[in-house]
Amino acid sequence: MKKIDLNSDLGEGFGKYKLGNDEEMMKYITSANIACGFHAGDPLIMERSVKLAIKHGVAIGAHPGFPDLMGFGRREIKVTTEEVRDYVIYQVGALLAFVRTLGGNMQHVKPHGALYNIACQDYKIAHAIARAVYDVDKELILVGLSNSQILKAGRKVGLKVASEAFADRTYMQDGSLLPRNVKGAVLDNVEQILDRALEIVEKGTITTVNGSKIEVEADTICVHSDTPKSVEITKKLKETLVRHGIKVERMSM
Amino acid sequence: MKKIDLNSDLGEGFGKYKLGNDEEMMKYITSANIACGFHAGDPLIMERSVKLAIKHGVAIGAHPGFPDLMGFGRREIKVTTEEVRDYVIYQVGALLAFVRTLGGNMQHVKPHGALYNIACQDYKIAHAIARAVYDVDKELILVGLSNSQILKAGRKVGLKVASEAFADRTYMQDGSLLPRNVKGAVLDNVEQILDRALEIVEKGTITTVNGSKIEVEADTICVHSDTPKSVEITKKLKETLVRHGIKVERMSM
Amino acid sequence: MKKIDLNSDLGEGFGKYKLGNDEEMMKYITSANIACGFHAGDPLIMERSVKLAIKHGVAIGAHPGFPDLMGFGRREIKVTTEEVRDYVIYQVGALLAFVRTLGGNMQHVKPHGALYNIACQDYKIAHAIARAVYDVDKELILVGLSNSQILKAGRKVGLKVASEAFADRTYMQDGSLLPRNVKGAVLDNVEQILDRALEIVEKGTITTVNGSKIEVEADTICVHSDTPKSVEITKKLKETLVRHGIKVERMSM
Amino acid sequence: MKKIDLNSDLGEGFGKYKLGNDEEMMKYITSANIACGFHAGDPLIMERSVKLAIKHGVAIGAHPGFPDLMGFGRREIKVTTEEVRDYVIYQVGALLAFVRTLGGNMQHVKPHGALYNIACQDYKIAHAIARAVYDVDKELILVGLSNSQILKAGRKVGLKVASEAFADRTYMQDGSLLPRNVKGAVLDNVEQILDRALEIVEKGTITTVNGSKIEVEADTICVHSDTPKSVEITKKLKETLVRHGIKVERMSM
Repeated sequence: MKKIDLNSDLGEGFGKYKLGNDEEMMKYITSANIACGFHAGDPLIMERSVKLAIKHGVAIGAHPGFPDLMGFGRREIKVTTEEVRDYVIYQVGALLAFVRTLGGNMQHVKPHGALYNIACQDYKIAHAIARAVYDVDKELILVGLSNSQILKAGRKVGLKVASEAFADRTYMQDGSLLPRNVKGAVLDNVEQILDRALEIVEKGTITTVNGSKIEVEADTICVHSDTPKSVEITKKLKETLVRHGIKVERMSM
Repeated sequence: MKKIDLNSDLGEGFGKYKLGNDEEMMKYITSANIACGFHAGDPLIMERSVKLAIKHGVAIGAHPGFPDLMGFGRREIKVTTEEVRDYVIYQVGALLAFVRTLGGNMQHVKPHGALYNIACQDYKIAHAIARAVYDVDKELILVGLSNSQILKAGRKVGLKVASEAFADRTYMQDGSLLPRNVKGAVLDNVEQILDRALEIVEKGTITTVNGSKIEVEADTICVHSDTPKSVEITKKLKETLVRHGIKVERMSM
Repeated sequence: MKKIDLNSDLGEGFGKYKLGNDEEMMKYITSANIACGFHAGDPLIMERSVKLAIKHGVAIGAHPGFPDLMGFGRREIKVTTEEVRDYVIYQVGALLAFVRTLGGNMQHVKPHGALYNIACQDYKIAHAIARAVYDVDKELILVGLSNSQILKAGRKVGLKVASEAFADRTYMQDGSLLPRNVKGAVLDNVEQILDRALEIVEKGTITTVNGSKIEVEADTICVHSDTPKSVEITKKLKETLVRHGIKVERMSM
Repeated sequence: MKKIDLNSDLGEGFGKYKLGNDEEMMKYITSANIACGFHAGDPLIMERSVKLAIKHGVAIGAHPGFPDLMGFGRREIKVTTEEVRDYVIYQVGALLAFVRTLGGNMQHVKPHGALYNIACQDYKIAHAIARAVYDVDKELILVGLSNSQILKAGRKVGLKVASEAFADRTYMQDGSLLPRNVKGAVLDNVEQILDRALEIVEKGTITTVNGSKIEVEADTICVHSDTPKSVEITKKLKETLVRHGIKVERMSM
């Protein structure tokens, strides 16, 4: 029986600011990537998000990003490997304290935004992240784009890794994602997203921007939490997967 | 044989900014309170500070403060108990990750600046801090001003506490400290500081601003790291205490 | 013919975060208080907000707050008069640059949140703000709560001032506002808000929390932009005022 | 008679943190680039720096940088031209308010750190900065590296520009600076620095990293304020220039 995890970025508000519908998303996903205060999230939101995940039986992951609230962690900052390493240790540690305080477990770490993109392409940065995660807790799963440098680095340092695929993002021919600021980067046609998700899970392929198919390995599919249709898409995605006999469960199962 | 711990606030730089002479201070103190990124400190400085403490055999403590880098955590912010609790969990967790990653242990938590002052006087805030520390790790020692609310709250939640006294700060008649922004709040006469430290450890008393003596219990004496004479004072203080047959060792011994 | 200004806090998003429905609010208000980057707002949002105000013929004001994005400027920070003064100069100056660059004029300054509350009660802080505003541009109008210290300070330094009243906030007997974190502080019954607004403008009185009436002087009524009913209330408020023969126009007219 | 301006980056502390010896530097330089709160500087330091410049008759410039206090504005952030434009307007406007409040004039704008480097090489970013400066005040002088894109963009939008050369930085063959993080990027041999400064002013050339000479146009020479020898170098540099019959005066003369 085929299985897949559904992950989503949650806890991405800050102070008075809200983002997405975390409470609803938690009903359908199996893994939550919780912001840690650098690109989004603050201590109160982190505690609330961890509580919510525990309440819904959703596996918890840290979602560390660049220290750039103004840019929501989506702008590349030219950092050193030492900076990246320490930013990851700091953020994962901060979230871990809430998780343990509330009696939960941390399942995984998935870098956010520009840090994710760089880590998928730059082995040195990927390795710095992987080492940091391993040093904090070697049982953590490192999540990254299918076939990317971060998975290679994760395996190298001895971590379990999870390959991630996107049903609602446009893929380039080389398996990378079309950057978010390019028109057409994020899909919003529900049927198309469901079809792509099924293709990913059942056939292990995805159709790229120029119409050809490439192979993708997928332990988890990322669903966005911050678009108007997020909840609807996630609900239907889960139902569709289940209807096709696919088991939807956390990546660590 | 009498014994005392010497603690100091370290790792209080930020980015390019340096503060104090941590490397020298580490030679004489027995416990280091390391800033956690809110009032001072950043991930790189935290890692460096933890390494330095381990290298010198100095016990490590977290030094959480208000989220106010511009005011160095010395300005009171009217926060709720929930906010205080989560700020402490976040900061202690972040430092803890560096400590564990580097193979060390965290001995204690001591709030910084305005958070310390409020926690000494306001039981509700003190209790929120104590609960947060207990929930993160119930073996941690909570450090606070002798006879203050924070020690009361720490004992109440089941933590070990350490009474702190200041040899270089002016005391009010009620045992509180003259606020830093008042002239004469911080002493810099070396001989006077040494005499006061001896009085604290040997007699358990301190002379207040109006000349009378009050009782102080002291498990640890705080030495400042950010004045021109800090290293000199700390070196002499340690020598003086040892010469008087007092054992200078970490509070957890 | 009676006249009144309708002011609202706008431009209070930050980075990816949005708050309120500025575009709709601009259709009904006559003065906009634009956040300046400390409690909310960032350079891009400030430029966008100024453009929007100019497009809608809405008078522009600076809305400086405490440097506390995490608390949205609603938490008191114990600052010195020198700090307050420089925080106001900095923020007003930053917004002024956008206003001039876009060919507009700045009409007024209204402190935000906790800074507003303190300035209404503490003459020294109020005076520091008033001096700062005067020094930046002595033609600016200083906006503050009817009968409060900030209006007194504004007049003292030679500024024009505008008395502000709130139709949707609960008043205490002494003319101050029930703090926001107290239940019942913000009203959301549309009819009640309209009635109170008319009472303010037509009779110069407001009913307090204990049912008695106190006098309020009002050059401007504040309407909130961040509640679900904000746009509806503001639209109806303007229509109601006009229907009662009251001229709704910017305070500087 | 040949003439040259001496500029230095000042006001680069933050909160409790100090950097450099501004008071001493002011005695020898003719133009000060004052940090505006993004990469360094806060409102109090800005006010103090502007006062100090006015007291010493030093011309005032704004020194806007990336919003990256943790990286001191020295790390490239991938921003859009719209972001750059608004960051510059915001920061220049904030400083301008202090300058006018204190009765001074702003002479120039010089981007800081990574923003400077990018603006020297990327015409689109350079143009966004130049437009922002022009829109705030078209009399401002835009300062940038000799022969770089920022001077080209400044002239294009109609600004006066000033060519800057560095006596204490290593030049590459193409006229760009060896990046700061490369060993040997910043020179500290006083005699060598003085010789290079004279060569720049008297011959209009500079010796590059591989020993050959290239032409540099220089209206102003940048002297660093944050090294142990800064004051000594600056004092000697001014004396040497004067002894060689070169007039040392602000760029706007």
